[in-house]
Amino acid sequence: MPKNDKVSISVIRRLPRYYRYLGELLQKEVNRISSRELAQLMNLTASQIRQDLNCFGGFGQQGYGYNVAMLRDEIGSILGINNNHKTIIIGVGNLGKAVATYVNFEKLGFELIGAFDIDPSIHGTAVRGVTVTTPDNIKDFCEKNSPSVAILCIPRLAAKEIVSDLIEYGIKGFWNFSQYEIRLEHEDVVVENVHLADSMMTLSYRVSTLKQS
Amino acid sequence: MPKNDKVSISVIRRLPRYYRYLGELLQKEVNRISSRELAQLMNLTASQIRQDLNCFGGFGQQGYGYNVAMLRDEIGSILGINNNHKTIIIGVGNLGKAVATYVNFEKLGFELIGAFDIDPSIHGTAVRGVTVTTPDNIKDFCEKNSPSVAILCIPRLAAKEIVSDLIEYGIKGFWNFSQYEIRLEHEDVVVENVHLADSMMTLSYRVSTLKQS
Repeated sequence: MPKNDKVSISVIRRLPRYYRYLGELLQKEVNRISSRELAQLMNLTASQIRQDLNCFGGFGQQGYGYNVAMLRDEIGSILGINNNHKTIIIGVGNLGKAVATYVNFEKLGFELIGAFDIDPSIHGTAVRGVTVTTPDNIKDFCEKNSPSVAILCIPRLAAKEIVSDLIEYGIKGFWNFSQYEIRLEHEDVVVENVHLADSMMTLSYRVSTLKQS
Repeated sequence: MPKNDKVSISVIRRLPRYYRYLGELLQKEVNRISSRELAQLMNLTASQIRQDLNCFGGFGQQGYGYNVAMLRDEIGSILGINNNHKTIIIGVGNLGKAVATYVNFEKLGFELIGAFDIDPSIHGTAVRGVTVTTPDNIKDFCEKNSPSVAILCIPRLAAKEIVSDLIEYGIKGFWNFSQYEIRLEHEDVVVENVHLADSMMTLSYRVSTLKQS
């Protein structure tokens, strides 16, 4: 559990990376690691690592380093991966289907319980064991099943139309793959954006600049 | 063109967002905008915007604001979206197919010219007009066609195995969807990561913390 409520977002964004590296170490049967060694591996400084982990109460023993399995479990539990957030996906086209199939929901703290798409030709088909149905059913579905997270794999304008409804239906977190930038006036709702086009344009810039040099 | 070669990565990462917002303004037929108005829209400060754009030589006229179309074109050209980087995709499973189909390559400065997958059952099928073939052909293909960018939609271990070969074959930029963290010793190669699991774990944390409060 966090020592204080206001852990900075940049620390939080590093936690999944710790989690990933510690998982790799476990696979290699490394059971104990010093902050210095972990720092080297992750291309951070040892003091950075100690600072990050101190935000949540430490976990290391002076001179003994970290117990890899224990630290990984602690970070996982901080990240809430045991929380099974009930999740719906809006948009089950190519992208939605890939996200639903590819991402390991259960291991990351989510449970997919609903899937919605405007395309009637895919209604009744299943994605990750969940039957795709019309968005007309979202309101009813949310009332009955209280999902807390929505994954948006729909175009910008469709997203713009649906976001405030979803918040009204009780959605607290958005995993947003749409180009629509959700500007929230609600303090009790969070958005995690995956702007693929932005990422690709950044790559374009960086590759272009390489070529110039 | 950049005024200096060392524009910080955080400025660069903001450029696609400017590009997106300016595109939206154009669609609404807004032709001119002050840094103050743009700042309000994007939830930045006006001085931040002026600073960002000054890295590339300005573009605004004191007291007149920015010409939206011109500024968008300039940013697009800085981002290299007219450069048509020759691109190959490695891994055409669910995720690779979604990335290839969903992302608007041509508009973002890329041209998909090759697609590779180890699964023989999809060899000969097409993705975005490109025929999927075996990874055994990558070396030959690169020698003949000189792609500069590779999109990795393969598992961690597969990525680990192939990255250094790809660099040897002339790949300069990676769009990395694999869980593998590419640690580059090559200064003339760039990596843009899309770690979907990290993003989802961050969301899990943020939704979990909401619930506690």
